[in-house]
Amino acid sequence: MAVTTAHRLSRDQVIWSFGPELEPVLEVEAGATVTFETNDCFTGQITSEDDLVTGIDMSRINSATGPVAVKGAEPGDSLIAEILDIRPAEWGVATLIPGFGQLIDLVQSPLTRRFQVRDGEVRMNERVAFPARPMVGVVGVATDVDTLSNGLAGRHGGNLDDRLHGKGARIYFPVRQPGGMFAVGDMHASMGDGEICFTGVEIAGEVDVRFDLLKGKQATWPVTELADRWVPHATADDYDEALKRVSEEAARLLVDEHGFSMEDAFIFLSVACDAGVAQACKPAPQFGTIGRFSIPKLGACPRPFA
Amino acid sequence: MAVTTAHRLSRDQVIWSFGPELEPVLEVEAGATVTFETNDCFTGQITSEDDLVTGIDMSRINSATGPVAVKGAEPGDSLIAEILDIRPAEWGVATLIPGFGQLIDLVQSPLTRRFQVRDGEVRMNERVAFPARPMVGVVGVATDVDTLSNGLAGRHGGNLDDRLHGKGARIYFPVRQPGGMFAVGDMHASMGDGEICFTGVEIAGEVDVRFDLLKGKQATWPVTELADRWVPHATADDYDEALKRVSEEAARLLVDEHGFSMEDAFIFLSVACDAGVAQACKPAPQFGTIGRFSIPKLGACPRPFA
Repeated sequence: MAVTTAHRLSRDQVIWSFGPELEPVLEVEAGATVTFETNDCFTGQITSEDDLVTGIDMSRINSATGPVAVKGAEPGDSLIAEILDIRPAEWGVATLIPGFGQLIDLVQSPLTRRFQVRDGEVRMNERVAFPARPMVGVVGVATDVDTLSNGLAGRHGGNLDDRLHGKGARIYFPVRQPGGMFAVGDMHASMGDGEICFTGVEIAGEVDVRFDLLKGKQATWPVTELADRWVPHATADDYDEALKRVSEEAARLLVDEHGFSMEDAFIFLSVACDAGVAQACKPAPQFGTIGRFSIPKLGACPRPFA
Repeated sequence: MAVTTAHRLSRDQVIWSFGPELEPVLEVEAGATVTFETNDCFTGQITSEDDLVTGIDMSRINSATGPVAVKGAEPGDSLIAEILDIRPAEWGVATLIPGFGQLIDLVQSPLTRRFQVRDGEVRMNERVAFPARPMVGVVGVATDVDTLSNGLAGRHGGNLDDRLHGKGARIYFPVRQPGGMFAVGDMHASMGDGEICFTGVEIAGEVDVRFDLLKGKQATWPVTELADRWVPHATADDYDEALKRVSEEAARLLVDEHGFSMEDAFIFLSVACDAGVAQACKPAPQFGTIGRFSIPKLGACPRPFA
């Protein structure tokens, strides 16, 4: 069921990269709600199993709808994007891409599979179906200096590909430019942690977002709040480095926001918090590997930023 | 509540490594239940915050109680160890160890923290407590050729350090030697995925296990069955390689046991299954990094080995 949002952006209003100088297509107050129509990651170029990734225009990949400027967002703040609802379309695709993913040496590629999404279920074929877990892969704000294609992830967000970015997630982005400049796309009806073939069930749809601001506080990478946990992220060329960075990021939250010593943060993360993998579809270092850490919200325990 | 088990092993009946030639301290039929008393990983050498890892005998680390031979277990079979219950003691410790773990360069080490475990809760200090998630770190069977200290993980299991190895887990071990030769230890009242400081809440306790056999089938590494999923494992010196190996292992289960093509297995793992981290407390390549993959049990979907 769609919530009633105050604004709507069409899937023709898109960006293909996040940079420092983005022109907003909409400006809203903090507290506003916006519905984003999003393209699938291939921008509709693959609609049947006969359409292969090798036959499409690779410059039209991972569009993100926006950007939206939020009034009052300034560098040093956090822009909070709360995902109120995600409504995938009925048909999605996954693809095997020559050279990409953990098992690419064992398969014939390119190859396309089509999935039907209906009543909360994703159907792969007559025999195999699984629950839909709608989420957004590309979600971010303007960068500080660099211009990064939407295939990439970084401190601005971008292609974070975290399956936790579904309905109810509140993502805190570090604002680098006035207005923040938020954009979202690359919806998946379902994606597994790791996204090991480089795609989830890629699908068009609609995303409802509510914006808020946290003045004067920000993390280095996006941090996501769920009902039961805080989830910092970090990116690197390989997972071992991404895990080290996200461990540092998680420890900083515990030290700066909740008064842990660094020693106790290190121990608490080891004994009570869960390291995870958002995306790791190697070999593809140029696209980054994304680590995350789940810090439980507990009675007496940390609520970073709270 | 303890289940009634037919056999009991004391925490003095331990091994410190898994090799090809292990002498059983108990022989049971398939279907038998055994209670294993286990030492904490430091074998009781650290009982207060004044006891540091640098002051203990490091040859007495990670004892595993056993081994138990299961009659009829032959190379080529799987030995199934079902964890019926885990009962931690009241006090456990976590430690910071010079040179180990993701944040070790940012802290003073060595250091020991003591935790109280009571009524399903682990208390770190007056301010911080979190739910107990009792699990076993070291769990394995005899190896094919090599002798591996219990600090190591491998195809025999060993120091898998997977927090999913709690009550209700059914772990399928590839039998390499007659009888299998099962041993278990290294209990944690709680451990986070990644175990980034190299310890969980290390604690003594009791583990109840029921043994079963699956004749003539085995995976390459241990595979764990939970109520809602199958979880293959793989080990390597770094996580990127561990993820590649566990992706191959997971795909083999889908192809061999459930009739997927390799292409569809690759896609299904990417869109519907979750890659995860059991242990990754670098820099410590010699101890291995352990990847896992969660394959959901779904109506029409895979039940490897079923």
